Amino acid sequence: MANIRSFKPKKFPKLNIGFTPNRPQTTEISMVNDKLFVNKQSLPFSSSKGVLRLTPLGGVGDVQKNMYVYEYGNDIVIVDCGVGFPDDAMPGVDLVIPDISYLRDKKDKIRGIVITHGHDDHIGGLPYLWPELNVPIYSQKLTCGFIKGKFTEHNLPKDQIKALNINDTIKLGAFNISFYQAAHSIPDSTGIILQTPVGIIVHQADFKIDWTPVNGQVTDVGKLARFGEQGILLMAIDCLRVEKQGYTLSEKSIEGTFAQVERDTQGKVIITMTSSNITRIQQAVNVASNSGRKLALAGRSMENNFQIARDLGYLDVQSGLLIAQEEIKRFPDNKLIILMAGAFGQPESALARAANYDHKFVQLKKKDAVVFSADPIPSAEVDQGRLIDRLTTLGCKVYYSAMTSDLHVSGHAASEELKLMLGLAKPQYILPIGGNYRHMRVFSEMAQGLGYKEDQILLPVDGDMIDVGKNQTKINGHVNVSNVYVDGLGVGDVGSIVLRDRQQMSEEGVVIVIASIDQQTSQLASDPDIISRGFVFEKESEELIEAAKGIVKSLFRDRKDGKLDWRYMRHEIEENLNKFFYQETKRNPLILPFIVEV
Amino acid sequence: MANIRSFKPKKFPKLNIGFTPNRPQTTEISMVNDKLFVNKQSLPFSSSKGVLRLTPLGGVGDVQKNMYVYEYGNDIVIVDCGVGFPDDAMPGVDLVIPDISYLRDKKDKIRGIVITHGHDDHIGGLPYLWPELNVPIYSQKLTCGFIKGKFTEHNLPKDQIKALNINDTIKLGAFNISFYQAAHSIPDSTGIILQTPVGIIVHQADFKIDWTPVNGQVTDVGKLARFGEQGILLMAIDCLRVEKQGYTLSEKSIEGTFAQVERDTQGKVIITMTSSNITRIQQAVNVASNSGRKLALAGRSMENNFQIARDLGYLDVQSGLLIAQEEIKRFPDNKLIILMAGAFGQPESALARAANYDHKFVQLKKKDAVVFSADPIPSAEVDQGRLIDRLTTLGCKVYYSAMTSDLHVSGHAASEELKLMLGLAKPQYILPIGGNYRHMRVFSEMAQGLGYKEDQILLPVDGDMIDVGKNQTKINGHVNVSNVYVDGLGVGDVGSIVLRDRQQMSEEGVVIVIASIDQQTSQLASDPDIISRGFVFEKESEELIEAAKGIVKSLFRDRKDGKLDWRYMRHEIEENLNKFFYQETKRNPLILPFIVEV
Repeated sequence: MANIRSFKPKKFPKLNIGFTPNRPQTTEISMVNDKLFVNKQSLPFSSSKGVLRLTPLGGVGDVQKNMYVYEYGNDIVIVDCGVGFPDDAMPGVDLVIPDISYLRDKKDKIRGIVITHGHDDHIGGLPYLWPELNVPIYSQKLTCGFIKGKFTEHNLPKDQIKALNINDTIKLGAFNISFYQAAHSIPDSTGIILQTPVGIIVHQADFKIDWTPVNGQVTDVGKLARFGEQGILLMAIDCLRVEKQGYTLSEKSIEGTFAQVERDTQGKVIITMTSSNITRIQQAVNVASNSGRKLALAGRSMENNFQIARDLGYLDVQSGLLIAQEEIKRFPDNKLIILMAGAFGQPESALARAANYDHKFVQLKKKDAVVFSADPIPSAEVDQGRLIDRLTTLGCKVYYSAMTSDLHVSGHAASEELKLMLGLAKPQYILPIGGNYRHMRVFSEMAQGLGYKEDQILLPVDGDMIDVGKNQTKINGHVNVSNVYVDGLGVGDVGSIVLRDRQQMSEEGVVIVIASIDQQTSQLASDPDIISRGFVFEKESEELIEAAKGIVKSLFRDRKDGKLDWRYMRHEIEENLNKFFYQETKRNPLILPFIVEV
Repeated sequence: MANIRSFKPKKFPKLNIGFTPNRPQTTEISMVNDKLFVNKQSLPFSSSKGVLRLTPLGGVGDVQKNMYVYEYGNDIVIVDCGVGFPDDAMPGVDLVIPDISYLRDKKDKIRGIVITHGHDDHIGGLPYLWPELNVPIYSQKLTCGFIKGKFTEHNLPKDQIKALNINDTIKLGAFNISFYQAAHSIPDSTGIILQTPVGIIVHQADFKIDWTPVNGQVTDVGKLARFGEQGILLMAIDCLRVEKQGYTLSEKSIEGTFAQVERDTQGKVIITMTSSNITRIQQAVNVASNSGRKLALAGRSMENNFQIARDLGYLDVQSGLLIAQEEIKRFPDNKLIILMAGAFGQPESALARAANYDHKFVQLKKKDAVVFSADPIPSAEVDQGRLIDRLTTLGCKVYYSAMTSDLHVSGHAASEELKLMLGLAKPQYILPIGGNYRHMRVFSEMAQGLGYKEDQILLPVDGDMIDVGKNQTKINGHVNVSNVYVDGLGVGDVGSIVLRDRQQMSEEGVVIVIASIDQQTSQLASDPDIISRGFVFEKESEELIEAAKGIVKSLFRDRKDGKLDWRYMRHEIEENLNKFFYQETKRNPLILPFIVEV
C-alpha cells in the first residue's frame, strides 16, 4: 500500500459559506439585570422613525433549522441557529444548515445570537456557522451546557457562550432583550422579549402550557401578560401543533406509564426517548429508584446529555443508582432499567444495534420490555416501525404509540394553549413559526376566529424580509436562501448538482463507457468497454451490453473522417445509449463516456 | 445519430423467475353451486391421513404482496397474488412481487388462483406471475374486472379470469372452495372457505365489520358462524389494525363530511382518495348530485377504476353528471367536484401536477378546497405532507387527517371486530396475516386474552411451511423467499447487489479512475484521469482530486517490476483511494478503477 500520509492537500473541505473566520470581536455588550425592564425611559422607544427588519433564514414553512435575523439600523440580533434533517431528496446528506449569505456584508452589525432552548433544530447549526459569525451566544444554563458539548466535539472555543439567568436582561445595540420561562420537552426553554425602537416583539419558539411539569418550569404566563398590557407589536409563535384541538397533556403523565411497565416486566426494562428530554429521563430515574432496579445508559447522545444535565443540576439521581454499561451483565434482568438512544429507529443507534445482536453490553431477550417514549417524525416512521418489528421477532414485549396513547406527550402547544397565549400577549401582528406552511395557514384561520384580520397574520417563507414598523408590518422583499448541506466533513461542498447525480444513480444506476481510440486514425483501437453499476446484473444482460457496444462502434464507424471532436463524440455516445437503454429497459442510467487515446 | 433500431437484441429482460410460459392447461375444474357445501359426504374429510401444507410466499410479517400456497397431495391452490411497494432501501424499484421459486417444480399441481379482493397488494402480482403459472383465476365480478384491466394493459389473454357469484362453490382438486361476503374499502371483498381433507380452513384477508356499508355489502357473519359450528381447523385473518381498540367507523360517515365541505366551498371541490375505493367514490358522486355540481375525474387510475366499476354496475351515476376533463373550464368553479388521483402525494399524480401548475385541465385557485380522504401509509407520509404544503401555498383550503378525524375511515377491523370474528369462527388454530410482525404479536396477545393458548396462534415469516393436520398444526421447515424487484420493463434483473451499489452511490457518490498504461513498461502512459459524480463538486475540490491522482501514480511507481497484475492493481487503487477519501471527507464513494493498455 502506498503511504497515503505523504500527500498533504490543504485541509479539505473549504467552507464556502462566507466570512473570514476569527475576525476581531466588535460587538458591544452590556449585561444588566431584571430591573431595567420597567425603566422605560432607558429605551429609545419613540426616538426613531426607522423600521425593523425581520428575516427568517429558516423556520417558517419549515419545521427545522430555525434562524431569525432581527435588524434595526446598525444592529443585528440573531435568534436561534438550528439544523435540519435531510429528506429522501438529499441522499447521503447528514445535516442541513441555514444559508447565511444574507449576512455576508453585514457581519459587523451582528451583536449576538440568542438561543431559545437546547434542541438541535435551534442550536445544531452553531458548530458550523458560529466560526463564521464569531459573536457571543446567550442562553440559559442548560442550553449553554448543550452548546458547549457541541463546541467541545468540534474543537471550538467556548468562551463566547454566555449563560444567563431567566431574569437577566441584555442590551445588544438597539435591542433590549429579556426572557421568560416556557414549558417544553427540554428544561430551560424560554420565550424571548425584544424591546426595540419600533415596539415590543415576543419570540416564542417551541413551548406548551403545562401546569404540572416534572421540573417545575411552568410557562410564565404572568410575565408575558405584563408585556401584553404594555402592548406587543409582533409575536412570533410556535405553530407546529395548531391542528390539534384542545390541550396537550402534561409531561407528568408519563411516569405512571413507566412504573406500570416496570411492574409488568420480568426481564430488563429498556426505555428509549429523545435523549435531550431531560425531564422524561428524570421520570425513568424515579421509576428505577422506586422499584429497586439499577439504571444504565446506552448510546452516545444519551450518555452525553445525561451527564451534562446531571452536572448542571437538572437531574436528581441518587448515588449508586447509575451503573456502567460494563456492569449490566452482573445484575439480574429484573434489576435493570436501561435508557437507550435510538427512539426513531436510527440504524446506527444503540437500540438498533442491540436489536441486531450487535451491542457489546445489552443483549435483548424474550422477557425484556422495550418502551418507545417518542412519536416518530414523519420521515422516521418507516425506520421506527422496522425497529419495532425487529424487536418483536426477538420476543421482546414492545410498547409503542400505535398501541396506546400514554407513552408520549408532545412538547408543543395545541390550539387552546395557543389561544391562551394570544389572549395574554394580545400582539398586534402574529408570525406563526416552526411549522410547515400548512400549519401556518391553520394558525391564521384559528387567529381569525379570535377576531384578528387576515393581514395581521404574517405568512412568509424562508428568506422573506418582514418590515416591522409602528402599527404596520408587511413582507417587503426576499433574499435567496438555499439549503446548505453537511456531508461527512464537508459543509456546502455538496450542492444540487451532486444531489441530482446521486438521485439519478440511486434510481437508475450508472453505465460507464470506455472507448480507446487510435491516435492516428481516430478509430476504435479495440472494442469499447461498458461497465454498469446499479443498473442491471451484467451477467444476466450480456446481450443488452453487447448491443450497446455495437452502438458505440457504429458511432465511430459512421462518423466523417478528420479530427475527432471528443466532446461531440461523448455527447453522441451519451444520447444514443440513453435512448437505447430507455427503449429496452424503461430506465435512464447515468451514462459516463470516456475516450482514451492509445 | 446512429440508427439504434438496427440493433435487435433478444427481448430484454429475460424473466428469471422460472417455468416455461404457456404450458398446456392441465388443471381440472368443476364448478358446482352453493348446495354442495352442506353435503359433507362428498368431501373426503376423514379419508386421508395426509397433511396439508400452507406456505405464505408473502403477507406474513409483511403488509403487502400477499400470496399463500395451500397444498395437499397433488393439489395446490393459491390464494391472492399481490405486489409490494418499494421502501427506501430499494431505490429505483417500481414494485416488489412474490418469489415463486418454491412453485418451480410443482407447476403441474396448481389447480387455480383464488383472489379475495381487488386491491393491488392482492392482485397486482398477477400480470407478472400469471404468465408463468397459467392457471385459472377465480374471484368476484368487480375483482375480475380490475384484473382484466391489468391484463389488458399487459397484453395478456383474459379468458382464464373466471367471475363467480358469492354463493358459488368450486372444486379445485382436493379443495372445495366457497366464499362469503366481507365489508372492506373495495366492493366484492370476500372471505374464502377451503374445505380440505384435514378440515375447514377460513382465509379472511382484509375486512372490517360495517353494519351500514355504502354498497350494502355487510360482512356475512351468519355464513361464517355456520362453518364455525361445523368446526374450523385454521383461520388466517387480517391483523393489520389489531393495535386499535374498539371498532372501526362505518364508511357511511364520510358522505356527511364531503357534503359539509361542499357547502363551505365557494370554489371547486377537489377530492382525492385511493382510486379503488369505489364506495367512497359513490359518496362523492352522491354529494355532486345533491349539490347540483358536475363531476369530473382526473388521473389515469381514477378514470380507469371509475369506468370499470360503473360498467359492471358498482357505481350509480345519473347521466349528465359526469363531464369530460376538457369541459372543466366551461363550468364555474362552484359547479364542480373533481375526483383526482394522488392521495398519497405521488409526485407524478394528477393532483401533484395540478399543485405545480402542470395539469392541462385543472387549475387550482384560492377559493378551491382539496380534501384528502385517505391516511397515508407510513412511507408516503412525507410526500403527502409536502403536497398539502404545496396546495396550501396556492391558497387552497386543504382538509386532511391531522386536522380532523372524519375524512377517512379504515377498511380494516379493529380489535373488537377481530374478537367478534374469532368468536363466530372459533378456529382451532389462528394465523394472523397481512400485518407486520408486531401486529401478529399483538394479535397473539389479544387471542390469548380470549383463552387461546400461545401455540394455537401461528407466527410464521414469509417462506415458513405450516403443516396443518387434524388437531395439530405447526411450522415445519422453511423455503427461501427473496424479493423480486420490478424496475421499468425488467422483472427480477435487479437484485441485492445492484441495489447495494445504488444505495452506496446515492449516499456517497462514485469516483471513476482511468489509468492508461504503456504496454511495454506497464507504467502509466500519462496522468490518470479521476472523475467523480455525486461525491463532491469537482471544481471545488481540485486539490483533493489531484492528491488522489498522486496516490494512483505512486502505486504504479512503487510496484515491483514484471508483468502487471491488473486485478491486483485495481484492488490496490480501490483500497488506497477508499482510505484516502474517507480520511479526508468521511465519505465512502464507490471507486471504479479502469486500466487501459496503450
